[in-house]
Amino acid sequence: MTGAQLLFKCENLQKTGSFKIRGATNAIFSLTDAQAAHGVVAPSSGNHAAAVACAAAWRGIPAYIVMPKNASRTKCRAVESYGGRITFCEPTITSRQETAARIQAETGAAMIHPYDDDRIIAGQATAAKELLEEIPDLDAILTPVSGGGLLSGTCLGSKGMHPGIRIFGCEPERANDAYRSLTTGTLQSLESSDTIADGLRASLAPRTFAILRRYVERIFLVTEEEIIAAMRLVWERMKLIVEPSSAVAIAPLLKPGTVASLGLSPRADGAVPKLGIIFSGGNVDLSSLPF
Amino acid sequence: MTGAQLLFKCENLQKTGSFKIRGATNAIFSLTDAQAAHGVVAPSSGNHAAAVACAAAWRGIPAYIVMPKNASRTKCRAVESYGGRITFCEPTITSRQETAARIQAETGAAMIHPYDDDRIIAGQATAAKELLEEIPDLDAILTPVSGGGLLSGTCLGSKGMHPGIRIFGCEPERANDAYRSLTTGTLQSLESSDTIADGLRASLAPRTFAILRRYVERIFLVTEEEIIAAMRLVWERMKLIVEPSSAVAIAPLLKPGTVASLGLSPRADGAVPKLGIIFSGGNVDLSSLPF
Repeated sequence: MTGAQLLFKCENLQKTGSFKIRGATNAIFSLTDAQAAHGVVAPSSGNHAAAVACAAAWRGIPAYIVMPKNASRTKCRAVESYGGRITFCEPTITSRQETAARIQAETGAAMIHPYDDDRIIAGQATAAKELLEEIPDLDAILTPVSGGGLLSGTCLGSKGMHPGIRIFGCEPERANDAYRSLTTGTLQSLESSDTIADGLRASLAPRTFAILRRYVERIFLVTEEEIIAAMRLVWERMKLIVEPSSAVAIAPLLKPGTVASLGLSPRADGAVPKLGIIFSGGNVDLSSLPF
Repeated sequence: MTGAQLLFKCENLQKTGSFKIRGATNAIFSLTDAQAAHGVVAPSSGNHAAAVACAAAWRGIPAYIVMPKNASRTKCRAVESYGGRITFCEPTITSRQETAARIQAETGAAMIHPYDDDRIIAGQATAAKELLEEIPDLDAILTPVSGGGLLSGTCLGSKGMHPGIRIFGCEPERANDAYRSLTTGTLQSLESSDTIADGLRASLAPRTFAILRRYVERIFLVTEEEIIAAMRLVWERMKLIVEPSSAVAIAPLLKPGTVASLGLSPRADGAVPKLGIIFSGGNVDLSSLPF
């Protein structure tokens, strides 16, 4: 269907249902005992929240999760099931940051940012590392991009092992700040984020932007319709539950001509290109599916 | 959640999306060249139809599939995608059998019954065989039961390797002919079959009944609500698309007390029982989900 052999890193099957547990675990277990003593705090309504709650429970410290009061019940339940302590805030960035800062001041908890953190990026890098340990001769890797933690980690984890590997990011047209940032060479923020890919509604940070500028060759943009069609194809043909954000990473390849446009060198073995795709997560609300 | 360790044979990830390809392949490749020369015919509207079409294509012979004219477009497309030639009949057992017999007479094709066939049962037996090769110390295996091909094969494949293993069947209350047959000791037919488990709407044949009588310890019955809840749990927590028929095999274990009621001997290693569950398939119509 794509003119390539596709190999998948299924982070939808990961603990807590997404790759976020990698970075959260690395960050939380990197804390000294003194730093960890008062727990961790994370402002997040999504997969990072569940990951921080889970990793904190593994370390045996409290996790304070700041969630907007309109967060879905499903996501709240996930955080609670891992023992996270939720504080609700107004659904604005300001309220979220203020609430997190207040908790940090009151408790002395360590802040665990979802992507603007070297320990988080190093943790996310292990997904690409494992993929390459299993399939060393990949020509390229594609991942979704939001704040850039997974994509930055993928760059560092894979270029370190295979300097010649090509790295591509995939992003919804409706949340295209990484595309605009890499195209203009200046960090752009997100003007709107009304995409079904609810994991991809954040903007790059200076830290992730600097890594992507250096290593990412191109950002592919996909429409909402392309995301839904790709998600449906994975569900129907691969029998895997992936969330819309995961589908963003395969959607570009379903458009005719994409693989040819990558300009990959011919393989020594004469076979079609071998592409790695990181499925970022599988947390969906089955009560509100787009099909 | 169940008081047991559960290990799954994921036939939803199998070619054509169900275990049926095992029996179909074995039956079709067991034909002599003379028998195969005129193709195969199968009356089926479900997973067996796609499996026969696919296995016939592998052997390079025509597959004539008899489907009721009200069969879903999804299932017809699956058969066609493997090169099967569909003949539509009235949605009655009589019309289906007459149409299949007529095609057999006209073409000389070999009939491939979905379960009343030793070659089919031997093929289905390979699922349990593979499961036990990977996990030799299972205490028991649970599978869904419909016509009894998978469950018969599971008995023969596993009892041959591990005579002490316990085998259980799982069946919808609304299609409970295997339960009634094993309870009464007389082959019973299906009076109704309006269950969401669309792969479990057939009745045992004398051949499969004889095998189940000898080896199956008990048939668990589950309600429609229990099937849907089990399916939802697998989708949400395991991130795997299983069809309702697959969920039937895990649903009994989600009822408190089921594992204790199995009366399994304590394990030498002191751990909880190890149960194998065969997920029979993953073909669902995403446009009409029960949640």
